[in-house]
Amino acid sequence: MKPPNINKLPNFDTISDAAKQLEGHRIRTGVMSSPWINALIGAKLLFKCENQQHIGAFKFRGAYNAISRLSKQQMQAGVIAYSSGNHAQAVARVCQMLKIEATIVMPDNAPIIKRQATESYGARVVEYNPDTESRENITDQINKNDQLSFIPPFNHPHIIAGQGTAALELMGDNPDISKLLAPCGGGGLLSGSALAAKGVNSNCKVVGVEPELADDATQSFHQGKIITIDYPDTIADGTRTLSVGDITFAIIREHVDAMETVSEAMIKEAVRIIFYHLKQVVEPSGALGLAALLEDKVAGKAVAADTIGIIMSGGNIDGQTMSTILAEPSIF
Amino acid sequence: MKPPNINKLPNFDTISDAAKQLEGHRIRTGVMSSPWINALIGAKLLFKCENQQHIGAFKFRGAYNAISRLSKQQMQAGVIAYSSGNHAQAVARVCQMLKIEATIVMPDNAPIIKRQATESYGARVVEYNPDTESRENITDQINKNDQLSFIPPFNHPHIIAGQGTAALELMGDNPDISKLLAPCGGGGLLSGSALAAKGVNSNCKVVGVEPELADDATQSFHQGKIITIDYPDTIADGTRTLSVGDITFAIIREHVDAMETVSEAMIKEAVRIIFYHLKQVVEPSGALGLAALLEDKVAGKAVAADTIGIIMSGGNIDGQTMSTILAEPSIF
Repeated sequence: MKPPNINKLPNFDTISDAAKQLEGHRIRTGVMSSPWINALIGAKLLFKCENQQHIGAFKFRGAYNAISRLSKQQMQAGVIAYSSGNHAQAVARVCQMLKIEATIVMPDNAPIIKRQATESYGARVVEYNPDTESRENITDQINKNDQLSFIPPFNHPHIIAGQGTAALELMGDNPDISKLLAPCGGGGLLSGSALAAKGVNSNCKVVGVEPELADDATQSFHQGKIITIDYPDTIADGTRTLSVGDITFAIIREHVDAMETVSEAMIKEAVRIIFYHLKQVVEPSGALGLAALLEDKVAGKAVAADTIGIIMSGGNIDGQTMSTILAEPSIF
Repeated sequence: MKPPNINKLPNFDTISDAAKQLEGHRIRTGVMSSPWINALIGAKLLFKCENQQHIGAFKFRGAYNAISRLSKQQMQAGVIAYSSGNHAQAVARVCQMLKIEATIVMPDNAPIIKRQATESYGARVVEYNPDTESRENITDQINKNDQLSFIPPFNHPHIIAGQGTAALELMGDNPDISKLLAPCGGGGLLSGSALAAKGVNSNCKVVGVEPELADDATQSFHQGKIITIDYPDTIADGTRTLSVGDITFAIIREHVDAMETVSEAMIKEAVRIIFYHLKQVVEPSGALGLAALLEDKVAGKAVAADTIGIIMSGGNIDGQTMSTILAEPSIF
């Protein structure tokens, strides 16, 4: 894919256009609510269930929007991506649907369940040792003559626009949402969600949420420049990205109203509450929005919205991690 | 409530009428599908997600259909029910919505989580010792002058009709479903689902599923008379009823095509598959339909339908039970 032009940022039209591209291909995921959770928080919470999306996460949307726009020639040549997580599965799944060859570069310590899921969609997985090699170098070696189209994980207008379609669906059906919470890893979901939300309701406050242990975007937001952190050991593996991208950051600075951080304990509490009260399986990153509201409650902060939207980003959690979380006592 | 007339069984119109009664009050639960599960079974499976229903189970539908039809005078007097499980929560929740006083008779060994959930909806819980007292006697003692309306758990036309509305929604949207699987405890869900399915598509085969350890309805079905079993120690607590009712059995005999039983191991495998591939939290009883298809697969039975509907009846499972299930190795 062509390197994007930082001077031409995606906007609301880009998101709307991505929604057209995805129509009939993405799952129009459900929106759920719980009287118990509403009573706890003191507002009406609407959870957009991207755990129900293809491959169990919103990442399908961006990957489809990017890959389906490749030329016939590019599709015949194949695509390449690196990821140890949901982006790998998303690219593999989209390529399976569009009959494109996919090569995914994965660290050799990636969870076997994620490698198997990626391979189950027919992708070729190339392993590398993250202690001695860089994924960029491996990708360049494989793709010496640039014959393969590289699909970036977040810092590209097509990816950002695709990710924003989840919030567009949620806000389109519920334009009275006055606060929208989205998790932040590389910033693709957050920046796309912000464009979508502000486009539907310019008064909607958009809040990005990160684990305290992975607060690079929060630091960047407050310092006005991109901050890179060391590998963050948070349970929310979807947010372990070391920094946001220049495009996602430019959008976040312009359209996101606030960043919040949450403790590991509150992330796990949010996973438990969603398990018991929404009957949904979410990965820790997908529970960040609710975790932020729980932190606000503990801090005694007033709820500043009647209707709050939460992007529940994914549900790819292994049984052992879920069991560990369920074994801990509830806070609320 | 008046004792029902066994000679006037509910029919498709009764279900349609219940659907009208429930409109705007029940959650129109989602229908989900998974390419992975479809490939495993060799058919298109549509899961009706009653785990997303109020109180986390289909039981809300029957309770609402029965209680909302009481006279104003009956509502003012209050209702009474006995149950250690989802029916207790359903009656309590409906009464909370309709501002009716509810008394629930529960065994003193009922899981604390279920008692708390019932109380959280504002119901009065009366405990009894199931070793020395009968729930019928306790209920009669409390309700000496029949001032309270008794809400039966399954053997009543209003309850059966309410439970059938889940299948009606599923079949209405997907009339090409040629096989429908529903779990069977007291038979309210199965009999209501059969009436709904046959009414929409008379060629649809309706199959009831029970744990091998709680096969009273299967025995009854084959022997042509109601068989009562001893307390069955199955993990599928929603199907631990000792026998079906005379009304539910009459409908099952007439409209259900087959009964199947499943092993405890396969029930747990189905819970795991639904966790990983649909990202849904289901209780073991809710996984019986998928478990039956997995048993068929192991037995080498041909899949006799292109599109199969599954009533995923509920999601009220405690964390410890889920963790135990997730800790076991996968079969598929």
